[in-house]
Amino acid sequence: MNITHLGLLAGALTSAAAIPQVVRTYRTRQARDISIWQPVLLNIGMVLWLIYGLVIGDTPLIVANIFSIVCYSFLIAMKILYKDDDKSTSCV
Amino acid sequence: MNITHLGLLAGALTSAAAIPQVVRTYRTRQARDISIWQPVLLNIGMVLWLIYGLVIGDTPLIVANIFSIVCYSFLIAMKILYKDDDKSTSCV
Repeated sequence: MNITHLGLLAGALTSAAAIPQVVRTYRTRQARDISIWQPVLLNIGMVLWLIYGLVIGDTPLIVANIFSIVCYSFLIAMKILYKDDDKSTSCV
Repeated sequence: MNITHLGLLAGALTSAAAIPQVVRTYRTRQARDISIWQPVLLNIGMVLWLIYGLVIGDTPLIVANIFSIVCYSFLIAMKILYKDDDKSTSCV
């Protein structure tokens, strides 16, 4: 395995990490315990990583970051949409 | 700003993204809506990014990933510790 493959695998894993969270939030419609600052800061940082990757011409960084930005944008949208309402209980 | 500074800023932001989530989870003792697979996959991926950063000698990648691995390890520990109990409600 050469170093680009290692980078691609690393990028695939860190990008794939967003999927179970996005799927769980979409299924449960619950985002109470998620801090909105996590996906917001991640997205700002990943836009910079994307620029960094483009400048140094690093394929793993470019691909991984585009995918993650899309995923975390969905998570931010759901966090806003679902608010912090607790839908699992009907009692106050 | 040169390219290393951009990478350092990007790394600082994506690493800092873990902080609000770790703080929120620690304060609320609630990790119900967090998928454990997110920090687990992130940590595996970031260990590979760390190796990648060490091999290509990229300081931003190395520093950012060590910090994030520590943060997400705390989050995994809290997710396991706090389970999925809903502590905000006493009614069933």
